[in-house]
Amino acid sequence: MNKIEHIGIAVKDLNASNTLFKKLLGTEHYKTEEVLSEGVRTSFFKSGPNKVELLAATDPESPIAKFLEKKGEGIHHIAFAVDDIEAEVSRLKAEGFTVLNETPKKGADNKLVVFLHPKSANGVLVELCQEIGE
Amino acid sequence: MNKIEHIGIAVKDLNASNTLFKKLLGTEHYKTEEVLSEGVRTSFFKSGPNKVELLAATDPESPIAKFLEKKGEGIHHIAFAVDDIEAEVSRLKAEGFTVLNETPKKGADNKLVVFLHPKSANGVLVELCQEIGE
Repeated sequence: MNKIEHIGIAVKDLNASNTLFKKLLGTEHYKTEEVLSEGVRTSFFKSGPNKVELLAATDPESPIAKFLEKKGEGIHHIAFAVDDIEAEVSRLKAEGFTVLNETPKKGADNKLVVFLHPKSANGVLVELCQEIGE
Repeated sequence: MNKIEHIGIAVKDLNASNTLFKKLLGTEHYKTEEVLSEGVRTSFFKSGPNKVELLAATDPESPIAKFLEKKGEGIHHIAFAVDDIEAEVSRLKAEGFTVLNETPKKGADNKLVVFLHPKSANGVLVELCQEIGE
């Protein structure tokens, strides 16, 4: 785990939250991206070596829509940058963590991603992400 | 806001969670610290330029005890490093954010800290922190 790559925050209205986070972070979001497989539209802000990812649901059955319904807006996940996601998944499984998707999948921001189940990680939804093409 | 300084995670049992996060992050916590004013005992892990702070309640009336009671274990706050906390507080107040403590207070890890109300920040408890003696 090299660093906190980003923090994912579930929001209801991406445009309104882009304005809010511009005020908070003092910088504009530098891109938006739709991830069809996850049913979300995302936007990204830089904070030094880290990012803040806002996630809004585009599909009422998506995990983000369900999160918003159950818990409301707020921090959704924490993502750590890794160099070798398959090696990390093997290591973490051996340590007893429950992996939500065994095979890394294409996430936002040109990343291969794997999620760990919050129940195995103190209630924290942990994402591992590896830059594609590194 | 220079970077994500740390992510704060509320836990029930600091020793058990230190063991869990050692497995997750592949590194031991490098210090523990009690913050009497907040009624918490904390431990810190490094993740590159960032940290993970685990927080366990030492006082049943502390904010962390109440968070655990209401929401269970999980991500509690996100902290951004700032150079001039008083200037940031002024800027954020002018932008419409609600500040929980106007006067920066001494937090863990040799920091002056100010919290923003989650209601003004998309459900996210935001901490600003400035290294003391910089």
